[in-house]
Amino acid sequence: MIYEALQLAGILAFALSGALVGVRRNLDILGVVVVGAATGTGGGILRDILLGVHPPVSFLHWPNLVVAVAGSLVVFFVHPRLTRIRRFEVVFDAFGLGLFSANGAALALASGQAPITSVLVGTIAAIGGGVIRDVLVDTVPGVLTRELYAVSALLGAGLAVAVVALGGGVIAGSLVGGTTAIVLRLTSVARGWHLPRPKFAPETGKASPDAP
Amino acid sequence: MIYEALQLAGILAFALSGALVGVRRNLDILGVVVVGAATGTGGGILRDILLGVHPPVSFLHWPNLVVAVAGSLVVFFVHPRLTRIRRFEVVFDAFGLGLFSANGAALALASGQAPITSVLVGTIAAIGGGVIRDVLVDTVPGVLTRELYAVSALLGAGLAVAVVALGGGVIAGSLVGGTTAIVLRLTSVARGWHLPRPKFAPETGKASPDAP
Amino acid sequence: MIYEALQLAGILAFALSGALVGVRRNLDILGVVVVGAATGTGGGILRDILLGVHPPVSFLHWPNLVVAVAGSLVVFFVHPRLTRIRRFEVVFDAFGLGLFSANGAALALASGQAPITSVLVGTIAAIGGGVIRDVLVDTVPGVLTRELYAVSALLGAGLAVAVVALGGGVIAGSLVGGTTAIVLRLTSVARGWHLPRPKFAPETGKASPDAP
Repeated sequence: MIYEALQLAGILAFALSGALVGVRRNLDILGVVVVGAATGTGGGILRDILLGVHPPVSFLHWPNLVVAVAGSLVVFFVHPRLTRIRRFEVVFDAFGLGLFSANGAALALASGQAPITSVLVGTIAAIGGGVIRDVLVDTVPGVLTRELYAVSALLGAGLAVAVVALGGGVIAGSLVGGTTAIVLRLTSVARGWHLPRPKFAPETGKASPDAP
Repeated sequence: MIYEALQLAGILAFALSGALVGVRRNLDILGVVVVGAATGTGGGILRDILLGVHPPVSFLHWPNLVVAVAGSLVVFFVHPRLTRIRRFEVVFDAFGLGLFSANGAALALASGQAPITSVLVGTIAAIGGGVIRDVLVDTVPGVLTRELYAVSALLGAGLAVAVVALGGGVIAGSLVGGTTAIVLRLTSVARGWHLPRPKFAPETGKASPDAP
Repeated sequence: MIYEALQLAGILAFALSGALVGVRRNLDILGVVVVGAATGTGGGILRDILLGVHPPVSFLHWPNLVVAVAGSLVVFFVHPRLTRIRRFEVVFDAFGLGLFSANGAALALASGQAPITSVLVGTIAAIGGGVIRDVLVDTVPGVLTRELYAVSALLGAGLAVAVVALGGGVIAGSLVGGTTAIVLRLTSVARGWHLPRPKFAPETGKASPDAP
């Protein structure tokens, strides 16, 4: 039951982040629900497709969908002013990221996958929902540009696998890995930590456009 | 045989809508065929991946591909003037939406999936082709922004499942659900029906840009 | 072993092309690695999902991931000047395209798939990595716009299937199809070969914007 609660908490956090993006983009109520539900359940669906679980759990297990849709509806009706929405997006996204990475990895290992597979599946589950959200609203996904985003997911998944491999159980692994990922991600945002960028000669310091 | 015809009609309708978008974007002949074929077969491929059908039917059953490619080629050579293309896109897209949502849902239920799974799989099959088309040409998918788009798909899939569950058969379910979805979608376009959008204080009525 | 080397060469070529795009877009070191690894392994992961291989080979077989990550890191630290990056992108992308299309198709046929399925799976494996790369960085995928891109992939996959069907073996098929695809693609770039575009009345010669 704790495990189920962690799972639903991750879905809710991502659904809230997706619905907030939908509100910011001025989508209608169903557009907000579609982005929210796709963000909340998308990472888990990707995980299930990769592991060969048919149909994906979220297509069968109605609480997942109810949580994602209800969270999106709440955001549609009750949301912060436009200028403050981004802050909430980042926080909910960080919670989704941590919960999914650790949980997905711990679960994959416990179900008999190899450690490397488990870490990768957890990471994909964590970043997948956000990538779906960002591709849907036609933005470069945050995983490519945000502070320590993928690092946090990898670390959370890796720690969770380590805890489970050492006999700590899925729930302990999810909590240790998830908390670490959330704290690292939010700290990196607060402090503005970035990884190094490529070096160019002075006149080319900006990204070039994509004209062919 | 009626069932097969409905399936191919849905593929053709989506392929035409995809190829029209390709023509409007001035892609070359193969670009038009690739967008058309991906739009026509994409929803069904997603459905098969979710249900664990390997390889997806469209990779094995050549009529699906022939219909999608032939429809795209026809559009490349014979298409309306640029200013009128959008109208045709919307109509063909609505037919694809209705046929796929009802058909996919009825088929999933008849093959033993749970009702909720069937409705979701039908909806994904219906909106999947259009999402692939819109993401490929770098636009926000219509499912997030167009009039009653996802509502029509959900309703079509739901009605189809209801008809099949009440003993009406897959073909009756496909026809009832599909017709309803097409009529609802096209009426919503003609009347400009929209679902409500989020409310903001006056000075923030427009969607904000995505600058980080 | 030759087969394994061809596989890794394809992954490396696509990873280099993806990482170069990441550098051009000024992503940080992990963003570059994520785009590079997703581009290098993405086509094969799509192939495995379509064929029902769970989990995809790249999630289990560490050399695939090591090659993709190492290649991306090399690009991050040692890359051409911005004005010359595109040329390298195109060349590495062509090698990935050729190796993946022929290899994927030959392998699918040898594992018992139908010829049409094998050609399509090879083509998807070849263009999939590039589509993932281009969608991630928010560009219209090259498969829709670049010179003879999809033609080269289809031809490479078709030739590979023909060679294997005639008893030539997977390695011979991969080499013949792959070389042909690479040569055709690079020649089409050098000569500026394009397939025909749709014809419009004079005042509408340009692609229209996507405003609704």
